[in-house]
Amino acid sequence: MSISNISSPTLLLNEKICRNNIRQMTLKISAASVLFRPHFKTHQSKIIGGWFRKEGIRAITVSSVKMAEYFAADGWEDITIAFPVNLRESSAINKLAGQIKLNILIAGTGIATELNKRLSANVGAWIKIDTGYGRSGIRYDNTADIDSCLSEIGKSAHLSFEGFLSHTGNTYHAGSRNEILELFEHARSCLVDLKDRYIKDQPGLKISLGDTPSSSVCTNFQGIDELRPGNFVFYDLMQEHLGACSLNQVATLLACPVVASYSKRREIIIYGGAIHLSKEFISNSKEERNFGQVALLTQKGWDPLPGSNKVVSLSQEHGIVRLDKEYIGKIKAGDLIGIIAVHSCLTAEAMKSYYSLDGKIIDHM
Amino acid sequence: MSISNISSPTLLLNEKICRNNIRQMTLKISAASVLFRPHFKTHQSKIIGGWFRKEGIRAITVSSVKMAEYFAADGWEDITIAFPVNLRESSAINKLAGQIKLNILIAGTGIATELNKRLSANVGAWIKIDTGYGRSGIRYDNTADIDSCLSEIGKSAHLSFEGFLSHTGNTYHAGSRNEILELFEHARSCLVDLKDRYIKDQPGLKISLGDTPSSSVCTNFQGIDELRPGNFVFYDLMQEHLGACSLNQVATLLACPVVASYSKRREIIIYGGAIHLSKEFISNSKEERNFGQVALLTQKGWDPLPGSNKVVSLSQEHGIVRLDKEYIGKIKAGDLIGIIAVHSCLTAEAMKSYYSLDGKIIDHM
Repeated sequence: MSISNISSPTLLLNEKICRNNIRQMTLKISAASVLFRPHFKTHQSKIIGGWFRKEGIRAITVSSVKMAEYFAADGWEDITIAFPVNLRESSAINKLAGQIKLNILIAGTGIATELNKRLSANVGAWIKIDTGYGRSGIRYDNTADIDSCLSEIGKSAHLSFEGFLSHTGNTYHAGSRNEILELFEHARSCLVDLKDRYIKDQPGLKISLGDTPSSSVCTNFQGIDELRPGNFVFYDLMQEHLGACSLNQVATLLACPVVASYSKRREIIIYGGAIHLSKEFISNSKEERNFGQVALLTQKGWDPLPGSNKVVSLSQEHGIVRLDKEYIGKIKAGDLIGIIAVHSCLTAEAMKSYYSLDGKIIDHM
Repeated sequence: MSISNISSPTLLLNEKICRNNIRQMTLKISAASVLFRPHFKTHQSKIIGGWFRKEGIRAITVSSVKMAEYFAADGWEDITIAFPVNLRESSAINKLAGQIKLNILIAGTGIATELNKRLSANVGAWIKIDTGYGRSGIRYDNTADIDSCLSEIGKSAHLSFEGFLSHTGNTYHAGSRNEILELFEHARSCLVDLKDRYIKDQPGLKISLGDTPSSSVCTNFQGIDELRPGNFVFYDLMQEHLGACSLNQVATLLACPVVASYSKRREIIIYGGAIHLSKEFISNSKEERNFGQVALLTQKGWDPLPGSNKVVSLSQEHGIVRLDKEYIGKIKAGDLIGIIAVHSCLTAEAMKSYYSLDGKIIDHM
C-alpha cells in the first residue's frame, strides 16, 4: 500500500526516528551502567522488538500476561510483567514461568502468600513501591508492610525476591522539566534508602525505576540497577508537552482523510476519532484541550505544524481540527492530513498495526 | 466460559436488558409513526442486529463504510452511513451501492460534485444540517449553501436527494433534562422549517434526527420522518448522568479482576484501564472525575453500587477504584468486580466482543 492511497485512519511509523529513539535511550542507559529493560507495552510489536534486539537488549518489561506470552513466543526469555500480579491468571503464569525467566510484582501484603498457593513454577518477585504516585504498591515509608511482604516471599517455595520496583508515573503530571527531575530524584533516593536498609538481609537485591519523562530528562541514575521506560520508542504530544522530547522525535502519526472543511469556523472535519486517537488530551494555560497536533504529510514523512493547528474535539469516528488562517484554505475534503497523537501507547493499542513509510505492515499484538 | 472463571477484563452483556431497551425504543418511535433507523455503531454486532430484526427493524444507520460492509454481509439491505462522505472511499461505496440501498451524507458544498465524478452506482444523499452542535454539516440558516448542495445533487447522475439529516450531539453537553428537550425542539423546528421551505421543489424529502438522550427523553416528534438513536441499546453511565436512563437499564458491564487493595486510602486497583474503558469521564459539581461506576456481580447479573463507589483514575491497563467504607474491607485481590462504563460505544469498540451472562460470545466488528 502506498501512503497516497490511504482511505481510512492509518497509523504511520517512521522507522528511522523510531530506531534512533531506541539507540539514544540504549546509549544513555548503558553509559550509566544500568540494565535497560524497556517496556514493550507502547509498541507491542515483534518487528519493533527486533530493533531493540539489534541494540543488544535481552530483558524486557510488559504490562499483561498476554503480552508476556506474545513476546515469549518470539524468543524473549527474560520478561517482567510490571503490573500487580493477577491471582486469576496464575495458571497462565505457571505455564509461562516453566518456559522463560518470568518476574511479577507484589503490590501489597497477603498477595505473595495467596500466589504461592497457586504456583507450580519459579517466579521472580519484585515488591512494588509507591514513592508518591499513589497508584499501586506499598508506600516507601511503610516498612512494616515491606517486612511482611519479604517474610511472605521468604516462606514461598516458588518466589525468589528480585528487589524493589517503582513507577514514577507522577512525572506525567509535572508542570516543568525541573519538577520531573525532583520527582525522579525523590523516587531514586527512596529506593536507594530501601536498598541500603535491606541489602544485608537480601544480598543481590536490585532497584528498578523508569518512566519515559524521567528517563529522557534525568541523568543521575546512581544506585539504580535497571530502568524500564517504554513510551520513548515513539514519544508523543504529551512527552513533547512535558519537555521529554521534541516533535521531530515523535515516530508515529495518524494519517486521516479530510471529509469536510468550514472556512468561516476555520475548522475541518477528519475521519479519525476517539476510537483511533483515544480521548487523551493536554490542556494549555487557557484550559483549551488539544487532542492531537496537526502535521502535513510529505514525500519523506511528515512536518509537524506549529501553533494552534490542533484537534479540538473528538467523537467516536470524527475529529474537529482547528487551523490557522494560512492553512484553512489549503486543506480540503479528499485530502489526507496527519495527527500527532497525545498518547502514542493508546493510539497504537486502538489501531492494532502500523504502516511503515514504504507501506509495509508492522505487527501490533 | 463461566463468569466466575474470568481472569482478565471482560465485557458482559445482559441480553434481557438489551432486548428490553430495543423493544421500548421501537415501541416509542413506531407509536409516533416515525421510521426507526437505529444506529448500529454502539453494538457493531450481527447477533444484536438480529434482535433488532425480530422487532421488525429493516433500515439501519452505521458510522463507517467498513461497518456498512459488515452489516450488508449479514443481509441488511437499507443502510445510511451517517458520517460526512469520505471521497477516498468511493470505490468501496460504489461496490456496496451496487448491492444494497445505500445512503450517504453531504456535509458541505463542492462535495456532491466531487463525489459524482467518482460514482458509478446510485446512492441516496442526505444533506447534513448543523442545528447548533457545531461539528459537521451546513448551518440550518445558511440557505445559500443548502441551495448550492441541492443544485449539485440535482445535476448528479448517481445521487438522489433523500432529505435533511441532523445529529443533535449537543444534548450530550446538556445540564438538565429540560435542556435536552429544548435542544431537540430547536433541532426539530429547524428541520421542519427546511422541509416546509423545500418540499415544493423536492417532493418526498424527509427529515432525520435522533441521538439517544433526546430520543429517550423527548416525545414531540412531529414532522420528523426518521430517528436514528444508537447508544440506547446498552445505555451507559453518561446517559444515566444526563437523565436519559436509569442504571438498571444499562446492559453492559466490564468485569475486572481486583489486583490490590489499600484500605487506608479506601482504594482498590483493578485490571481494567484506558484500553478497556476508554478515557471518557463525567464530572460532578466538585469537578471530581468519574471514569466508571462500581457494580457487584451477582448470580443473575449485577447490582450497581450507589454513591461514590467509582473509578477515579485510569492508566493504560490499571484502574484506581475508590470505595465507600462499607465495601473496602469486603473486596480483595483475586475478586471480580464490575464497572459500568461512562461511554458504552467506546468500551464495546475497545473490547471487540461481549460475553452473555451464560458465557456465550457475542460478536463485535
